[in-house]
Parts: sequence; structure tokens; C-alpha cells
Amino acid sequence: MAKQNKGNPKDVTVKALFLGPKSENREYFKNTLNFLMDEHMHWRRDFHPEDREIFSIDEVRSKNYQKTLDRTSEVLSQLSAKLKATSMPWFSARYLGHMNSDTLMVANLAYMAAMLYNPNNVAYEASTATTPMEIEAGKDLATMLGFNPKTSWGHITTDGTIANYEGLWMARNLKSFPLAVKKVKPSLVKGMSDWQLLNMPVQKVLGLVGKAKKAGCFDAVRSETVRGTGVGKGTLGVVLVPQSKHYSWVKAADVLGIGNKNFIEVQVDGHFRMDISVLKKTIDAHIAKKIPIIAVVGVVGTTEEGAIDRIAEIAKLRAAYEKKGISFYFHVDAAYGGYSRALFLDEKSRFLEYNVLKKRLFSDKVFVGNHSYPSREIYESYKAIPQADSITIDPHKMGYVPYAAGGIAIKDRRILDLISYFAAYVFEEGKDSPTLLGSYIMEGSKAGATAAGVWAAHRTVPLNITGYGEIIGRSIEAAQMFTRELEATKSLKAKGKEFLVQPLVWTPDFNIICMAFNEKGNANLEKMNALNSKLYAESSYVSGPVYKNDWVTSNTELSKEDYGDAPKDFVKRLGIPEKEWKRVGKVRVLRVCMLNPFISNFQHHDVLWKGFLEILRKKLEGAISD
Amino acid sequence: MAKQNKGNPKDVTVKALFLGPKSENREYFKNTLNFLMDEHMHWRRDFHPEDREIFSIDEVRSKNYQKTLDRTSEVLSQLSAKLKATSMPWFSARYLGHMNSDTLMVANLAYMAAMLYNPNNVAYEASTATTPMEIEAGKDLATMLGFNPKTSWGHITTDGTIANYEGLWMARNLKSFPLAVKKVKPSLVKGMSDWQLLNMPVQKVLGLVGKAKKAGCFDAVRSETVRGTGVGKGTLGVVLVPQSKHYSWVKAADVLGIGNKNFIEVQVDGHFRMDISVLKKTIDAHIAKKIPIIAVVGVVGTTEEGAIDRIAEIAKLRAAYEKKGISFYFHVDAAYGGYSRALFLDEKSRFLEYNVLKKRLFSDKVFVGNHSYPSREIYESYKAIPQADSITIDPHKMGYVPYAAGGIAIKDRRILDLISYFAAYVFEEGKDSPTLLGSYIMEGSKAGATAAGVWAAHRTVPLNITGYGEIIGRSIEAAQMFTRELEATKSLKAKGKEFLVQPLVWTPDFNIICMAFNEKGNANLEKMNALNSKLYAESSYVSGPVYKNDWVTSNTELSKEDYGDAPKDFVKRLGIPEKEWKRVGKVRVLRVCMLNPFISNFQHHDVLWKGFLEILRKKLEGAISD
Repeated sequence: MAKQNKGNPKDVTVKALFLGPKSENREYFKNTLNFLMDEHMHWRRDFHPEDREIFSIDEVRSKNYQKTLDRTSEVLSQLSAKLKATSMPWFSARYLGHMNSDTLMVANLAYMAAMLYNPNNVAYEASTATTPMEIEAGKDLATMLGFNPKTSWGHITTDGTIANYEGLWMARNLKSFPLAVKKVKPSLVKGMSDWQLLNMPVQKVLGLVGKAKKAGCFDAVRSETVRGTGVGKGTLGVVLVPQSKHYSWVKAADVLGIGNKNFIEVQVDGHFRMDISVLKKTIDAHIAKKIPIIAVVGVVGTTEEGAIDRIAEIAKLRAAYEKKGISFYFHVDAAYGGYSRALFLDEKSRFLEYNVLKKRLFSDKVFVGNHSYPSREIYESYKAIPQADSITIDPHKMGYVPYAAGGIAIKDRRILDLISYFAAYVFEEGKDSPTLLGSYIMEGSKAGATAAGVWAAHRTVPLNITGYGEIIGRSIEAAQMFTRELEATKSLKAKGKEFLVQPLVWTPDFNIICMAFNEKGNANLEKMNALNSKLYAESSYVSGPVYKNDWVTSNTELSKEDYGDAPKDFVKRLGIPEKEWKRVGKVRVLRVCMLNPFISNFQHHDVLWKGFLEILRKKLEGAISD
Repeated sequence: MAKQNKGNPKDVTVKALFLGPKSENREYFKNTLNFLMDEHMHWRRDFHPEDREIFSIDEVRSKNYQKTLDRTSEVLSQLSAKLKATSMPWFSARYLGHMNSDTLMVANLAYMAAMLYNPNNVAYEASTATTPMEIEAGKDLATMLGFNPKTSWGHITTDGTIANYEGLWMARNLKSFPLAVKKVKPSLVKGMSDWQLLNMPVQKVLGLVGKAKKAGCFDAVRSETVRGTGVGKGTLGVVLVPQSKHYSWVKAADVLGIGNKNFIEVQVDGHFRMDISVLKKTIDAHIAKKIPIIAVVGVVGTTEEGAIDRIAEIAKLRAAYEKKGISFYFHVDAAYGGYSRALFLDEKSRFLEYNVLKKRLFSDKVFVGNHSYPSREIYESYKAIPQADSITIDPHKMGYVPYAAGGIAIKDRRILDLISYFAAYVFEEGKDSPTLLGSYIMEGSKAGATAAGVWAAHRTVPLNITGYGEIIGRSIEAAQMFTRELEATKSLKAKGKEFLVQPLVWTPDFNIICMAFNEKGNANLEKMNALNSKLYAESSYVSGPVYKNDWVTSNTELSKEDYGDAPKDFVKRLGIPEKEWKRVGKVRVLRVCMLNPFISNFQHHDVLWKGFLEILRKKLEGAISD
């Protein structure tokens, strides 16, 4: 432990990693880009120097040649104008809307460099440079999430949605494996009932895969899993997700043939985390009806509230059920929050002890101030993440790389045999770079440039408290500060009226704050919702191109249909009576994602905050003057 | 028709569209890139000029700041070195392997420009500039494929695999709709048997969707389709694909819960096109067993052979079956060949008459020589493409844009209601730009930069015979020339031995040539396969980094298991007796994709060809000397 401060946390200066809100690093960016382009162009020229140029000078000087270049320039000018006219100023502290911010220079430059070589990671032959980078980046993710890099596996997907599909795909095929064994080679599961086979723990199923291979019947068994036979309506059971899940899970149940009716949403608590007691009741109720559980999904960083499900509790629950002969697959959707596990890791990727972490957050200057974050509960949730069987994690969210870069990490790579094609035994030869990545992932052709971008980001920014931990820690601190400042503010005055303001939760789990305003004394929820809708319109593209806007945010609606009574207390804090919540059943909130790593650390944060309150006040004036 | 030559086909000079094998257009590329980067950087600076710079000069000059920049540079240098060491020289005429070539400058530049704005096309709010570009690009694709732009729909996917999934997802959900109507509102399908409901033509099902909406029971019906209930094993029937299909279809049957057993591969003929008489027999056999057909898939440009399925015949077959009360969904997988439909279109996107087309191919200088291409059969296949219900088409293949950019076009956008979430009635308000694209496509977050790249390419290169048609026409001509030259060559001598060479087919449907060598007199297929495997190794990354290699190609194996006896005649032409084919059952071929648009048009093509033959001869020497 003495060595913890060895890797100087200041090796990486956050400000030097981004182009910056005023393009502060523009010279560096342009020079480096120029260098990379030159590298590529010389690479082309140096390939078989004996080959002639195919463009004659006459051709290049011809009118039509120039016309084509002019046409190209014209289209690109038009594109640039369109981009400038309406794009979102993610880079600015004035943008606090969706989960976006400036992205890492190194990731952008790496993408641009690799793009000219146009590798396709579907097959090694088409991506000899970038397939190994994807494998390395996948290993980085798996390691950061706490998996054993030797037995786990990770790769880049186009987005979190596809990663979620892939997780459920594995869970689904795995669930049907033991019954398929019974059909093809019953001796391997002798004495086990169908119910037992449907409740076999993941590791045991994977053991059975090995047994089937040894017995030479693996291919035959696999073709009797749902991948061969198709899904039988409801025969595999149900998938349990928290109400706060991303909507891609609803699509996943449809796409994978499981059906939305077998997709059960579990009530969240007042902190918008899955209620563990309700989860338990839901499992019990299904078990009582002899309906198996295909999978339970926990969310680390819900996209609307930034909530962190109690991963440790879910893992404990599964362990307890396994003692009773019940088991299921466990997937963590950390598309949003995944990278924030870096905050909890030391320079050797070891999960920091709670007290050490608390100290380092301050001594390493991740946090400027002292905060209660993280609570023990949050800490335990992060610690327990590797108890999941697979985890969605998106580099294009908290990895600060450009779209499109999602990702998935899988605890035990043996599970790939259940979704792979061609190569039945993917990793048995111990090869590191697969020859045909496309044969055991959901997608096919994929940009090697994405892998280059993620790989270069990981090589530049350590995946621990000194790198990503610091960047993301700052965004978390900004959310903590924002909430405290909101608490101190209580209300704002505009045009002689007083408006209460309340955050959705008092201690944000991550870096999203939801909040709403209400005119003091107003007890009508519809009126309050209208006010916040107007505030959102004033602070978004809805009121016109945002380039001149003082502040840009996003919004969301929390309804009784989606969340039960979870938002009830929040609404009450704003002076809305409970019966009004029951009548209207939905509340509109401003959703403020604070990914920008420069806010908490800003030299004159107090000035920034005061300026911000004044902007909010003006927005209120605008909203009530319509 | 008199106006056909109005739009001067020389408006676009092919050579001015690409960076070029010797980086011939490097100055243009770099200057334009610089301009686009400046545009973005000034855009940042001009956003609220009153905001201070957040980086102080002191900070920028600090040691740690410079250290971070150095670290970034170091990683990027390493990346560049890795890319140069092993990447594939797609740009060169020496690369004739996978379906890759140089990509359009405009697409690369547009991607790079848009990437800094980092739009996410999952939601309009996060991509105010690039979601409309995706909609436009989708419309371009639908129009080029012959769909009515007013009623059709198209969008960009990450790749053809996902587009294929999406097509099958729609087909599957659609198939289950009529039975769901019967369950919820039987009066709407009064008097119809289950069999009739499972054989309702696509347009009628979509009519039924409208009726269900009118009756106010659409949501209830939809939740009784497979999306709500899950797929029932085999209850929806089977999917028919040609043996030559891409392997993503096998994955699709698994992912979508249909099951590989319900996925039937139809024998291809000697030209590697789906055998229509076998297709008919296969349909009849299933119908006789009362097993419905979910979908038939035709391929325009098989990835191994470049074969074009007889789309017109498939469409005719469906029409004939519909008269007998049998129907199914029809998807065309034109991931590879889709853009080549541009060759058949005039400046107003009208499908050219056969004789006019033949004339223009020569008079517009698309072709340098006179070729039999296209045959009537091929012509009719392209013409019939819009008879499909949905079509996969990949911009990152024959659209000459960088990865990852797949796409799908859908004939009747009403079908989206069967896969959409949140917005039940997607297009009813006639809005052009959806607010949440992610709610009715398979994916979620997606790079707006991809849309910008494809959009800019389409704006620069016309999607007709004067633009993409000319580029792709050249690649097709190169394949024709290659085949004729191979025919004239017949055999090559190396180290005193004579080696026969044969193309897989005598008239390539598109721009892929497969070929194999055999030592004259050798009747052993295994020996022949070993020779071609060695030739491949000599001409690929297998024998080391390809940068010094004279020629780079790809290879594939055609087996009896996958193709039945389709390769038999080819093998016989090389002097291998039929019984040997029966014994060994697989043949290794070199797979030569000729996407490079500079080969046919090369000033001294005869010199190029002679040089190439000499390279091949040396490869043969290398292969037999091991």
C-alpha cells in the first residue's frame, strides 16, 4: 500500500487532454493531426515506389478535375455550415444536458489517423493493426471492471444497446443449454429435474459445456438450445430489470424473441435504485409459479437519474437463492457508469479500501472540496460489479471518446461458445487475436478506427484514480456541488414571484442531477409541469438554435406508469400534495448531466455559480412571460 | 430521353474523388481538412465570447501540462507506427483481396469534420444537424433502390449484419400480426383461417395495421404479436436463404429466436445464384406440411462470389404463390451490390431501358471496352429490386465511405409500427426528422458523423450512371477484363511446370473473381487445394506484413456441405475428376475483389496485366518451392 502514490497522479493533466472550450489546445491538435495525415500519405507513397502515379499532370489540371474538387469543397462547406448552425456545444460549461462533454483529443486524433487506413475489425485479415487493439481495449475494460483478465473477455460494440442485446443473447442461450444436454446426452445430467436444469448456476452450465465437449456431443447439444430450435414462448422464464432501465432492454426482449410479457420491471425506491425487497418478492412469486428467471439486470448509472443499483445486494441475493436451488444470469448495465469504477482503483487496478479511497480523493486533488461521496453503499456496489456475468460499458459515454463506441465485458469467456459460429471452440487454442471476430459477436463489419480511438485513450489516460478516475471524479464532484448549492439556494425570484427549486435526490449517486421548479404556493402539478416544460424549451433547441443560448439542458418525465410512486416525495417537497400526484401521475424535470470535467475545478466556481443562478432566473422570467 | 446526356457525366472526375494510390490529392486533402478543423475551432471560440478561457498561460506552460501532451503524442506515434506496419494497402491496384478500396475524400473529410461536433443520431436533440442528414441519406438509398421516396424509409446502420437483423425482425413481427388481430379483435379478420392469416401478403397486413388503429386496438394487438408474447418454437414457419448467403443470416435466425432449424438454405446453381426451381420445390414442400414461409432472402452480390440472385424470378414466384393463397416477406440482401443499381439509373433516377443503358455504358465512357455486361438476366434482377419489402445496402462497401456505415431501405414505412417503441405511430404526423430515431431502429446511440460522411458522399457523387454508376461500372469492367484475360492466359509456367488457371464462373455477375490454379495433369483435389492455399499465403498477411508484398488477395473455401455440387464443373475444368470432388468435397479458391476504380481505366492496362501475370508466376514459384 505504501506504493500507492508512486505513479504521480499529476502525470496526466486533465486540461491538456481536451481541445478545450475555447479550442485552447488548437495548435497542438492541428499540428498533431497534420503529422498523422502526413504519416499516412507517405505510407501510401512509399508502397512500391516503382509504381507510377496514376494521375497525369494534364488530368489534374483539367477543368473537370478542378470542378470535382470544387464540388467536393462546396459540399463540405455546406456541411460545416450546417454543423455550426445547430450543433450542441458539448464542450462548454453552459451545456449541461445529455451525457455529453468535450471528448479526448487523443481519441479523436487516433480515430482520424486510423480511419484513413480504414480497417474492419470483423476479420483479422482486414484489421491486422486494430483487431489486437480491440482485444487490448477489451481487456482494459474487463480489468477495470474487476474481471480476471485471463479468463474474461471484452470487446467494442457500436453502442450500449447492442451490448445489452449481446448480454441477453448469452443469458438466453445459456439458460437453454442444460435442457438441451438432457435431450441429447441425458447421462450428463442424470437425476436432475427440468426445474433444476433451468436453475443451474452459470458456472455449472459452463462446466457442462466442457463435459459436452469431452463427450463429443457439444455441437449436437448446441443445436438443441434455443439457437437451433427457436425460443419457445415463455419456456425459459422471465427477465427482471429495474423500472429505471434504459429502453433498449424493452427492445432486447422483443428482438431476442423472449417477448415483452416475459420482461418484468421491478419497482425502484426513492433513490431510483431497484428496490431489493421488491426484487426478492418478484423472484419468489415467479418461483412459486415455477417460472424460471432468465436474468436479473442491475444498472450502474441510470440514464435518466444517474442512479446506481445496489449491485452488492443483488449479488448477495443470487448467492442466497443458489443455496435454495434457484439461479439466474446477472448482467450489469453500466453503459453509463462503467468507467467510473476507475475512481476506485489504484495504479495496479486494485480496488481501494474505503478509507484510503476517501483520503486519496482529497489528497490526489480529484476533489477540490470534501464530500460525503461515496457512501458505503455506493462503494459496495462498485466493488461488487465483477460478480456480474457480463457488463455493458460504453467508451462513448464516460470514456470521453467520440461516437460510436459501446462495449461489453464478459466474466467467463467460455460462454462465447454458446453464441459463436464457425469456430465452435473459440479460445481453446489460447490465441489472443481472433481471426474472425464477427463469428462470436453480434455485429459484423466494424470500424477498426473505433478500436484505435479507445485503445489510444486507454494508453494515454490510466484506467484508475490517476486518470479516468480524476476526470470522472471531477464530474461527480460537480454534481455534488451543484446539489449543495441548489440546497442553499432553495428558491429564486423572478418578476416578483418566488420559485422553489428541488433536486430529485439529495445525494446524487453519480453525475446527473434532475431538478424542478415550482411557484411558491402552487399546488397544481400540471401547472408545475408546464413551468418546467417551458424552462426546458427556453434552455434547449426547442426555442431555436442553441448557439446564442445562455444555458442548454435536457429534460425527462417521470411517470407513475414507469416509476410507481418513486417520485412522490420529490413532488411533495415542491409543495404538491400527494393526491395531486395521484391525479396527474407524472412530473417533468430538468435533467442536468454534468460530464464536463472543468466545472468543479474552475478557478472561480463561486462566480460561475452566481452567474448560473442569474441565467436560471432569466429563464424563469422567460418561461412565465409567454 | 433526349435530355439524358444533359447532366454532363464528366461533372465528376473519378480520380479527383479519391486521395489516390500515391496520395496524389494530398494537398487538397490537407488544406480542406485544415479549413474544416479551423471552422470547428472558431465555432468553439465564438460561442459566448464573454466566457473566459479556462486554461491559464501558466498552466499551459507547466511541466505536467507538457508531459500530458508528450504522452498523447507518444501514444499517437505508436499508433501510427502500428497502422503503417501491418495495414492493408486498399488504395493500391496491388490489393485485390477483400471488398475494399480507397474511400472517397469527401466522406473521410466530412466524417472528420462532423466528429468534432460528436453528434449522436439516436435522438434529434443530440444531432440537430446530422439526423436530417441521415434521413436524407436514407431517402437517397431508397430512391436509388427504386422505392417511392414518399412512402419508403431508409436509415444508416452500423453494418449489413444489423440491417439483416432489422429486416428479419420486421418480417417476424409482421408475420405474427394477423393472428394477434384474431386474438384481440376477431371481427377484423372474420372468416379467415389461421393458415390464411399466416399467409397474408405484406401489404394486406399493413392494411390490417391501419384497421386495428382505427378500431383503437392496435396497441393491444401489437402486444399479442411475438414482440409481446415471445416467439413460439417454429409456429411462424421458416426463413429461406440461398446457400451463398452471408453468415450474418445464420446469426440472425439465432438472435431473433427463430432458430437455425427453421432456417433453410436453398441450393445455388453453377453460377452461385439461388436455384429458382429448388426454391419453388422447397416452398412447396413446406406448404404441403402446412409450415408457413416467414421470408425469402435474395442476395445481390454474394460476398464470396459476387453472384446476383435472380431477383425478378423470386418476385414473380411470390406473385404466383399469392394467387394460390401463399405469401411471405421478401428481403434483398444487397449489402454488397446495392450501390451498383446506380449504374442502371439516369440523371433523374429512372431505370434505363436496356438498349439505352448498353449504349451509355460505352458513350459515357463508363466502360473503356465493349462487354457483354449486363446480361438481360442481371438487368432484370436489378430492375426488380424494389419488389422486395426491405433491402440491406452498405455505404461502407460500394458506397466507398469508411467503416462503419451499413444501411437498410424499407418499401413501406408503415411497417415501422411493428418494431417501434414509445411512438406507436411513427410517421403519421408526416414529420421528416424523428425526435427519437432510436425508438424505431434496432440500434441506439450512433455516430452522426457517419451520416455526415454518407450524406456528403451522396451530395458529391450522383447516385446514377454519371456518379456512383461510373465508379462501380469501372470496377465491374475490371472484373470482366480480368476474366477475359484469364481466359486468354489459360496457363502459366513456373519452374518448368505448367499450371492451369480457371475463373469460378465465365461471366462474373459483379466485381468479384474467384479463381484457382492446378498443375497440369494433377488429378488430386487435395494437392490442388494445397497449392492454392500456399498461393494465398504467399499473397496475404499470412506470409508476413504485406507492405513489401507484390500482390495481396483473399481466399475462400467452397465446400459440398455449404454449396452442394455447385463448384463441381469448375473443379472439372481444372482437370479434377468428378469422383475426386465427391471424395474431398471442398475447393480452395483465390478470391479477388476488384473494387479499385482505376484498374480498367489505367492508361497502359496491357502493361499492368503483363506485370500482374509475372507476379502470379513468381507466386507460383514461391508456392511450389516450399
